[in-house]
Amino acid sequence: MSSMKHIEIIAFDADDTLWHNESLFTITQDKYKNLLAKYHDAEWIESQLFDTETRNIEHFGYGVKGFTLSMIETAIELSEGRISGAEIRQIIDFAKEMLKSPIELLDGVAETIEKLSKTHDLMVITKGDLFDQESKIARSGLAHYFSKVEIVKEKDDEVYQKILAKHKINKDKFVMIGNALKSDILPILRIGAAAIHIPYHTTWVREIVADDELKNYNFLQLKGMNGLAELFI
Amino acid sequence: MSSMKHIEIIAFDADDTLWHNESLFTITQDKYKNLLAKYHDAEWIESQLFDTETRNIEHFGYGVKGFTLSMIETAIELSEGRISGAEIRQIIDFAKEMLKSPIELLDGVAETIEKLSKTHDLMVITKGDLFDQESKIARSGLAHYFSKVEIVKEKDDEVYQKILAKHKINKDKFVMIGNALKSDILPILRIGAAAIHIPYHTTWVREIVADDELKNYNFLQLKGMNGLAELFI
Repeated sequence: MSSMKHIEIIAFDADDTLWHNESLFTITQDKYKNLLAKYHDAEWIESQLFDTETRNIEHFGYGVKGFTLSMIETAIELSEGRISGAEIRQIIDFAKEMLKSPIELLDGVAETIEKLSKTHDLMVITKGDLFDQESKIARSGLAHYFSKVEIVKEKDDEVYQKILAKHKINKDKFVMIGNALKSDILPILRIGAAAIHIPYHTTWVREIVADDELKNYNFLQLKGMNGLAELFI
Repeated sequence: MSSMKHIEIIAFDADDTLWHNESLFTITQDKYKNLLAKYHDAEWIESQLFDTETRNIEHFGYGVKGFTLSMIETAIELSEGRISGAEIRQIIDFAKEMLKSPIELLDGVAETIEKLSKTHDLMVITKGDLFDQESKIARSGLAHYFSKVEIVKEKDDEVYQKILAKHKINKDKFVMIGNALKSDILPILRIGAAAIHIPYHTTWVREIVADDELKNYNFLQLKGMNGLAELFI
C-alpha cells in the first residue's frame, strides 16, 4: 500500500461510513417482523421482504420511502390482504421514525473529518434518496466540512468517472473511503483510483461481493476511523 | 423586457416545463378518488389528501413515493382502517404506473431544446425525488442536450445562488425557464437573474403565489415553447 501523503481530495461514503444507517433498517425490520408475527415466522417475512425490495428497486430506487412501500406491499401479500389499516399505518410510522431519527456518527468521525478538513478537500459521495440524504448530511453537523456533496442513484465505475470529470479531479490525488466493497471500493479500484475500506458491523446483503473480484487490487482496510487522519497528514 | 441575446446559459425546469407531470398526478388522484368512493365523496378525499401531503412534506419531500405514502395514509384515515389490503395494493400499483409511464414532452420542446443546444449551454434544474427525476430525464431522450443537471430538494433563492456559484455562472448571462412562479420564477428574480414563465395548464396548489409578490419584477411570460428559441438566437 503506497502512502496517502500525495492525496488532495478525500471522498467519504455517508451511510455506515460516517454515521449508523443499516442498523436503523435492521431495527425497523425487527419491528416489522413483530408486527407481522401473527401471519408468518420472522425468517419467511425477511426473505419475502427482500424479494419485494429486489423487484421494486427498478421502480423505487434506494432509501426509506421505497423500503416502506416494499414493507407495505409485502405485508399485504404475506397476510393475503388481511393486514389491517391500523397495522399499515404503523408501517408508515416506522418510516417517519427512521426519517427523523437522530444521526449517530460512528466513532472517531467528528474528530477525523474536522482534522482532515484543514488540510484536504473533503467530499461526500452517497447513493439513495435525495431528500433523505440531504436531510441526514444537514442533521449530521458535518455539512460545512465538505466542499462537494454528490448524491447519486447508483455507485458504479461510470458514475465515479463522471464525478471526477465534473470536478476536474485527478484520480491520482483522490481517495474514496467507504464501508461497502461493491459500491465504494471496487468501482474506484477499477477506474484506477485509491480506496480505503472501513467495514461496518453489518453489511446489507445487496452489497456483499465475492472475494475473487477483489484479489487483483491493492487497497487499505481499516477497522475504524481512528488513525485515518494520520495517513494523510 | 430586455433582449435575451446576451444570455449564455439557459436553465429549464423539468416537470410541466419540458414534459407533462402534474397531469399524471391528476389522473392518479382521479383513480384514487374512485377507489375510495365508497367511503367518502371526491371533494373530501381530495382535501384530506392535500392535508396529509402538506403534513408529510417535511418527512417525505416531493415525488411519487412520498405522494403514494400520503395516499395510503389518507386512505386508512378516511376509511377508519376499513380499507382492504387489496385496495392498498392498488394504490402501490398506481405509484408503479406513474414511475414507469412514458415521458410526454410538451409541444415544441424537442425542437427548441435541439436548436438552443447548438448555440447555448443548457441545463436542467428540477426538484423532487432523485431516482424519479434522473429516470425521467433519461427517458425523455433529451439528456444529451444538457451539460448540467441539478436535482434539488427545494428551489429557493439560496439554492439557486449556490448552483450559480458552483458552476461559476454569471447571473447576467443566465435565464431560468419554468412553469412555476413560486419555484422557477420568483426566487430567480429575487437574486437578480432573468426568468421566463411558461405556464402549464394546471398548477399544483402548493405552487400558487399571490400576484402582489410578482409586481415588482420584470419577466417574460410565454404561452408555450414555440418562439422561445428565436429570443436567444
